[in-house]
Amino acid sequence: MMTAKEYVDSLRKLNTRVYLFGERVENWVDHPLIRPSINSVAMTYALAQNPEYADLMTAVSSFSGIRINRFTHLHQSREDLVKKVKMLRLLGQKTASCFQRCVGMDAFNAVFSTTYEVDEKYGTDYHNNFIRFLIMVQNLDLTVDGAMTDPKGDRSKAPHDQADPDLYVHVVERRPDGIVVCGAKAHQTGSVNSHWHIFMPTIAMGEADRDWAVSFACPSDAEGLYMVYGRQSCDTRKLEEGCIDVGNAKFGGQEALVVLDHVFIPNEYIFLNGEYEFAGMMVERFAGYHRQSYGGCKVGVGDVVIGAAALAAEYNGVERASAVKDKLIEMTHLNETMYACGIACSCEGCPTKAGNYQIDLLLANVCKQNVTRFPYEIVRLAEDIAGGLMVTMPSERDFASDTVVGSEGETIGEICAKYFAAREGVNTEDRQRILRFLENMCLGSAAVGYRTESMHGAGSPQAQRIMIARQGNIQGKKQLAKNIAGIRDKE
Amino acid sequence: MMTAKEYVDSLRKLNTRVYLFGERVENWVDHPLIRPSINSVAMTYALAQNPEYADLMTAVSSFSGIRINRFTHLHQSREDLVKKVKMLRLLGQKTASCFQRCVGMDAFNAVFSTTYEVDEKYGTDYHNNFIRFLIMVQNLDLTVDGAMTDPKGDRSKAPHDQADPDLYVHVVERRPDGIVVCGAKAHQTGSVNSHWHIFMPTIAMGEADRDWAVSFACPSDAEGLYMVYGRQSCDTRKLEEGCIDVGNAKFGGQEALVVLDHVFIPNEYIFLNGEYEFAGMMVERFAGYHRQSYGGCKVGVGDVVIGAAALAAEYNGVERASAVKDKLIEMTHLNETMYACGIACSCEGCPTKAGNYQIDLLLANVCKQNVTRFPYEIVRLAEDIAGGLMVTMPSERDFASDTVVGSEGETIGEICAKYFAAREGVNTEDRQRILRFLENMCLGSAAVGYRTESMHGAGSPQAQRIMIARQGNIQGKKQLAKNIAGIRDKE
Amino acid sequence: MMTAKEYVDSLRKLNTRVYLFGERVENWVDHPLIRPSINSVAMTYALAQNPEYADLMTAVSSFSGIRINRFTHLHQSREDLVKKVKMLRLLGQKTASCFQRCVGMDAFNAVFSTTYEVDEKYGTDYHNNFIRFLIMVQNLDLTVDGAMTDPKGDRSKAPHDQADPDLYVHVVERRPDGIVVCGAKAHQTGSVNSHWHIFMPTIAMGEADRDWAVSFACPSDAEGLYMVYGRQSCDTRKLEEGCIDVGNAKFGGQEALVVLDHVFIPNEYIFLNGEYEFAGMMVERFAGYHRQSYGGCKVGVGDVVIGAAALAAEYNGVERASAVKDKLIEMTHLNETMYACGIACSCEGCPTKAGNYQIDLLLANVCKQNVTRFPYEIVRLAEDIAGGLMVTMPSERDFASDTVVGSEGETIGEICAKYFAAREGVNTEDRQRILRFLENMCLGSAAVGYRTESMHGAGSPQAQRIMIARQGNIQGKKQLAKNIAGIRDKE
Amino acid sequence: MMTAKEYVDSLRKLNTRVYLFGERVENWVDHPLIRPSINSVAMTYALAQNPEYADLMTAVSSFSGIRINRFTHLHQSREDLVKKVKMLRLLGQKTASCFQRCVGMDAFNAVFSTTYEVDEKYGTDYHNNFIRFLIMVQNLDLTVDGAMTDPKGDRSKAPHDQADPDLYVHVVERRPDGIVVCGAKAHQTGSVNSHWHIFMPTIAMGEADRDWAVSFACPSDAEGLYMVYGRQSCDTRKLEEGCIDVGNAKFGGQEALVVLDHVFIPNEYIFLNGEYEFAGMMVERFAGYHRQSYGGCKVGVGDVVIGAAALAAEYNGVERASAVKDKLIEMTHLNETMYACGIACSCEGCPTKAGNYQIDLLLANVCKQNVTRFPYEIVRLAEDIAGGLMVTMPSERDFASDTVVGSEGETIGEICAKYFAAREGVNTEDRQRILRFLENMCLGSAAVGYRTESMHGAGSPQAQRIMIARQGNIQGKKQLAKNIAGIRDKE
Repeated sequence: MMTAKEYVDSLRKLNTRVYLFGERVENWVDHPLIRPSINSVAMTYALAQNPEYADLMTAVSSFSGIRINRFTHLHQSREDLVKKVKMLRLLGQKTASCFQRCVGMDAFNAVFSTTYEVDEKYGTDYHNNFIRFLIMVQNLDLTVDGAMTDPKGDRSKAPHDQADPDLYVHVVERRPDGIVVCGAKAHQTGSVNSHWHIFMPTIAMGEADRDWAVSFACPSDAEGLYMVYGRQSCDTRKLEEGCIDVGNAKFGGQEALVVLDHVFIPNEYIFLNGEYEFAGMMVERFAGYHRQSYGGCKVGVGDVVIGAAALAAEYNGVERASAVKDKLIEMTHLNETMYACGIACSCEGCPTKAGNYQIDLLLANVCKQNVTRFPYEIVRLAEDIAGGLMVTMPSERDFASDTVVGSEGETIGEICAKYFAAREGVNTEDRQRILRFLENMCLGSAAVGYRTESMHGAGSPQAQRIMIARQGNIQGKKQLAKNIAGIRDKE
Repeated sequence: MMTAKEYVDSLRKLNTRVYLFGERVENWVDHPLIRPSINSVAMTYALAQNPEYADLMTAVSSFSGIRINRFTHLHQSREDLVKKVKMLRLLGQKTASCFQRCVGMDAFNAVFSTTYEVDEKYGTDYHNNFIRFLIMVQNLDLTVDGAMTDPKGDRSKAPHDQADPDLYVHVVERRPDGIVVCGAKAHQTGSVNSHWHIFMPTIAMGEADRDWAVSFACPSDAEGLYMVYGRQSCDTRKLEEGCIDVGNAKFGGQEALVVLDHVFIPNEYIFLNGEYEFAGMMVERFAGYHRQSYGGCKVGVGDVVIGAAALAAEYNGVERASAVKDKLIEMTHLNETMYACGIACSCEGCPTKAGNYQIDLLLANVCKQNVTRFPYEIVRLAEDIAGGLMVTMPSERDFASDTVVGSEGETIGEICAKYFAAREGVNTEDRQRILRFLENMCLGSAAVGYRTESMHGAGSPQAQRIMIARQGNIQGKKQLAKNIAGIRDKE
Repeated sequence: MMTAKEYVDSLRKLNTRVYLFGERVENWVDHPLIRPSINSVAMTYALAQNPEYADLMTAVSSFSGIRINRFTHLHQSREDLVKKVKMLRLLGQKTASCFQRCVGMDAFNAVFSTTYEVDEKYGTDYHNNFIRFLIMVQNLDLTVDGAMTDPKGDRSKAPHDQADPDLYVHVVERRPDGIVVCGAKAHQTGSVNSHWHIFMPTIAMGEADRDWAVSFACPSDAEGLYMVYGRQSCDTRKLEEGCIDVGNAKFGGQEALVVLDHVFIPNEYIFLNGEYEFAGMMVERFAGYHRQSYGGCKVGVGDVVIGAAALAAEYNGVERASAVKDKLIEMTHLNETMYACGIACSCEGCPTKAGNYQIDLLLANVCKQNVTRFPYEIVRLAEDIAGGLMVTMPSERDFASDTVVGSEGETIGEICAKYFAAREGVNTEDRQRILRFLENMCLGSAAVGYRTESMHGAGSPQAQRIMIARQGNIQGKKQLAKNIAGIRDKE
Repeated sequence: MMTAKEYVDSLRKLNTRVYLFGERVENWVDHPLIRPSINSVAMTYALAQNPEYADLMTAVSSFSGIRINRFTHLHQSREDLVKKVKMLRLLGQKTASCFQRCVGMDAFNAVFSTTYEVDEKYGTDYHNNFIRFLIMVQNLDLTVDGAMTDPKGDRSKAPHDQADPDLYVHVVERRPDGIVVCGAKAHQTGSVNSHWHIFMPTIAMGEADRDWAVSFACPSDAEGLYMVYGRQSCDTRKLEEGCIDVGNAKFGGQEALVVLDHVFIPNEYIFLNGEYEFAGMMVERFAGYHRQSYGGCKVGVGDVVIGAAALAAEYNGVERASAVKDKLIEMTHLNETMYACGIACSCEGCPTKAGNYQIDLLLANVCKQNVTRFPYEIVRLAEDIAGGLMVTMPSERDFASDTVVGSEGETIGEICAKYFAAREGVNTEDRQRILRFLENMCLGSAAVGYRTESMHGAGSPQAQRIMIARQGNIQGKKQLAKNIAGIRDKE
């Protein structure tokens, strides 16, 4: 397994093409706007080196029997599913951000079981392709992005019906040794920081969408592949001097548009190629795993938000107020409810035909549906506890400024220190830090991950509602009611 | 294991004293106001006979190795904890009511582990007392009520400080062969229908409360013990002719005041007697198990409510309206969220010193806290879908009446049938039945179990909030925030 | 203006046909199940006699210049609209129930303005018919029921398309001197207690529905008209001896099916007769007024519920707990939010062509939408504060029983008094009363009015959402956003 | 009345000292980070020139009889209070930001009535001082900031008890011709953009706080007064080239720390000076008016957010989906509920002793309490509708870039246009604009005003709850419940 440093160094060897603010970024590994998101991924390597976390962070490969990073593991049991959730919570606690690597893990598990069933039907060899690929990933301890969401264009039309065929990733040429693909995947979390990508379809497809029903692996620096970096709220604070106003100086998330411009995929990296009726299965399984994930990672981030709100209250001297305590309880309650859903859909998992374990689909969707609501309420309560200063405080440069302003020679920095003093015994800078951290979580770049990603990542709320309707067995429930109400079905 | 019929017959052999509407009820087993609650308990026997449900409804005794009803079982694993939740959901689905027997199961598991630790400290023999008692319960397949909630009097005062010492159950006399106890337990679910009771303290106690720190088992028809039956909303509909207006003709819940009027308890049935510092442990463990229970039983009842609302929509001809479908999804989502909490606190359980398994305390409290909210919203949505007719429909006797009212000789019954006709193909009586069932769940006698019991059973909401505060590890969360915000603790 | 007693006596003179439990009730005025609802209406007479309330309860007739009961008044100003809301809140406070008379008031105001516009278009004489009718109502101080909701049958079909034409009230014969009508109105609040009825269509109609587009006034004891009384939760507690378990011994609501079996309506009482395109206007205006009403009456009832919960907390000795205080604040907050909506839609009212004042349609729908939610939450919080005893307390007969049960000769009554004692200085009976009152409001007969009627009365939630969509001016809001975002419409 | 241009020019004549990022800003009027907030204030001048809005935007001075900007008006009637709310909604719709000038208006009305009552008791001349000041303000059409919130230091201690006396503004010297004051006011909205400030105490005070019980007016460029500008989320996007990523290129809000460093206040501008028992009255009245304000301004901003979400749905091609429509309805419902509260507390206003009108205190607090909740839910729903692209879209510079990236010579800009195309007929740039506008409202600089200011402006949520408890008349409500439940007070 790589160390965090080895991981960062390994990125330097890639020839990944990244565009930001209209230009190519040559040394993106050290770009201050990008680096925090690399640090978040690096934490998945660092913690795996820590014996304290070995049980959560590592697993024994089902292929090789050697110990691997759990992010490259196929879940062999319900216990594995539960440990995944706990690992994600741990990483959320350590980074207070999106650490990006779970998308690949969820793709591994979905593609593994789907390819098995495709081969079973068609006698194709995708499953072996995938196994060979995954063994490489495990051995080299790679970070792989799972790329699913196409731009979609006109949502009322199927892929083959779009004005521009590239609005969904598709095969433009079939050669004896492989395929050539075009298209793009939008708002890809962690794509820049990944060694490889697994591409998957984004919706269930029909026969006419055959060329769009395609899944494959591809190195991040493949010929023809490039990324356009997405903006986040307050992203340029990362370019400023200082480390306080940025809120979370070390860690962050990342989204990008990943473009496939006539990329050649050799046969051995293809996992689906025209078997359109399996597109839906791959999507549903990936989405199921990923909806489970949110019951871990966002809970870990929530732990830090709750802690920060409690600190802000402490620094403000109001932590004993019953209204404050009650809000912290409510935040904890909401956070643990999401966690309970993450755990429950794991415990209720079951094996796929291919042998790895799948989460309970209904509960995973229930989990994610709660995640589209509760972080917003947790943020609201955090803003309530933090007080208005969180968004009206002068800049770090004001606090540090020695420009004289006062009648007795006080500097701006001294005036800020004087008037924004926390309760006795607390450094004003610590108060600054915790309020800026909360600003970052509630409105800043981390809010992208904690709020909007909680809403739309792994599928928007309505997607979960459709699954809940489908999985909720309303007919069975009607029968229960008939039995008790004494209603007999007609012969 | 007893059959349902054997269970009902076994009750007839008891000499339990029951008072209702100011008078003693001699044949309470067949009393129409009481019988539905007996049927609910009987279902715990009936389903255990059904091979289809054997895995959930039965278990292998940790003492005797024979197969017993799970309601008398000590949880030997996390799997046992999970199966408990599933068993309770199943029973909720079959009865749409409180089936009462889980209180005893939760008492068994709490008393088993607590007595072990009392003996460990004091060299007492309570644990063996309890084991012998439980072996009898398992062998005879008894229903045992767990009795905890004292009347409490002035809540700002400790037990020993009350004007009337009987406001908490206490020892009034200590004899060589046992103790004499006085006091009462309020709103006891299923007490009339139980063969035995286990009494436990209701709060943590101090040294001066020594005589109140008492736990013991006692037959329901012990000398000096009697019950005053509690009223429920619409209880007397059970006394009316007909089976529609009552809503749920077969099943129901039950609460009573259980009075101990100088009851003698032989030494062998004593499980705590003055070791006041263990009162809190017993309460907390029992409450923990019982808060888990609600993540099963109320979810099962919720399944029936959802099914009934869906049927009402179908009978009204509006089931395809997107607003109706969305409400059913929301009801399902809320119901499954409670279930997820029940499952999660079970999966995260761990062994006690005594060897049986305990739920995760934080998640069990989170579970119950959700149960104090979601059934109310489910009921609100059910009333929304059902329409106003649920509470304005004429009586069953009107629908059945042949009194002539119309100008062409139509009877009241015919007029009701004419104007309350459901959509084509649906019997008006079926519509009546489903609306009366919903009325029963939302406002009638079942609402006592589904709503108010969800609020206060196993502890009122504030009790869970206190536990969530205690278990939420705010200090640890503060540290997480400090780490990320770059705040260093002072040396 | 009549006194309360005169009102009750006036009912005895009517020959209204009422059916209950399958039989005709001869002396329905004194029937214990019906009488509380008559008392509620009587309160609208009693308070109008009280000089303290003269400003709210009375108004000066726009026709005669004499002082009349405001329930028979046409709103002449925004101030009148506001006073209506305050009058309804007052009555809710005095009865804790539905007092039924506002339906007629809302019908008066809707029919007055609609007939004006029908006449304007068609040269008909409905407006004068209505004025003459209303002058009689004002002079005799009558209670008039506004009857709108038809049984509707298959909701996907228009009135003329129903299998049974009677599922909507319609004209079956047109004579020179009047019309003959058939059909029924379902769940009519206060119909039995009204001297007259105004019938109105229940939906917008098309040309083929011409015979169903009919509105008229009719005495409650007209030949061919009769009522089938609806059941309420716990209705038969009103038949029991005693006055505690019933919860609210004096006041109540009432719903009935009102059947029109070939009833002849003379021309002078006809307000619409085939002008189908005005059916929608009449419905919308009536619904608007009635949605405003709920911002008054339910708020008044809410005041009593909040007071009762505060009393329960006081009697339990927990009123100073911060969690209890916070819940009372939340209940107050929700209650006043509904009130604010009632007031606002009144203040923002404007005159109709006919000269009376109409509420703001958007805000009235917003008002009612909140009423479909907040009373449920208020009830939930009331149940939280009240504690479980609200639904598990033995019956009044137990508390009164002198059957001996105790070893020292204690009676059941004494045992109940002993164990259900409130905090020092509070009568146990007072605690009983307040808990039974809350039971009545939360689950009992009053819950029909406070909960389900809040949901469906004046239109179900979805009806308001449709109106909010229609009135919300989304296109205008889009333009605001374009202006600020710098988006220019194409030429 | 000044035009918008005259207003901006008038600011240039001031010698206001403003510090930003650690340095003094000389030409702050044209500073791109500050200017949008000036534009927002300027809109209060521009609209007053528009005859279409004359009725809302202007009023007739109660002193001079000439037409003045309503922002300088004393409310002479309930109608004036209502018009204030409508004016604020209009301005919110036109700026989608905080336009800052209402703080002064609310201060005028609070200080006017409070000084009257101080003079009445003490024979002081504050009221005349204030009238003379206000006449100047009206005649010159000035913008005046109302400055209330002191830094407060240790919140458990009174002003006189703080380690640093400057943590509350106070008198440090009393001279024959005036006073010298020290201290600061934190997070002052619009202070930089105001010609004058009115300072008021921030809490009720006791005798020992006499020197802190001080209120006065002061020019913004008085000797010794200066401001330190607060940071907002995404503030530096205003410094970037381009006008799309900034979200709202023209308008914005502003907060600053206002420091009083030995500022001399001549006697004629003093409105309170030691009459400590009136500090609470001034605070409560100001807060009451300001809580009313939020029922106007935030509703206007909400209108734009709703419009923007509807546009985003339209551009995404999903506006007809029932789930989307339902979310827009919910947003509208919540927005109008806040408006209803703003209107209602105005309609229910009443005259003060001094003659101007005051809002209803209970309803104004209820209004603001809803504002601490609903904008958060509106934002959540807006993010739901907008989709993830709102926070992952590449920068404006990417869309504009002509750097070649594609195999066929496509530029970054072309690739962005290709893959982020909206539905047919919609410019991609328009989609960019509306998503960036929503980003700005939900997470960017406007979120400071729309979310956090809604939470803490005019008092944090708990402050309103305390007022609701105080104004809710719980004792009266208890009496209502006693009357109905038949509980008699003891003699």
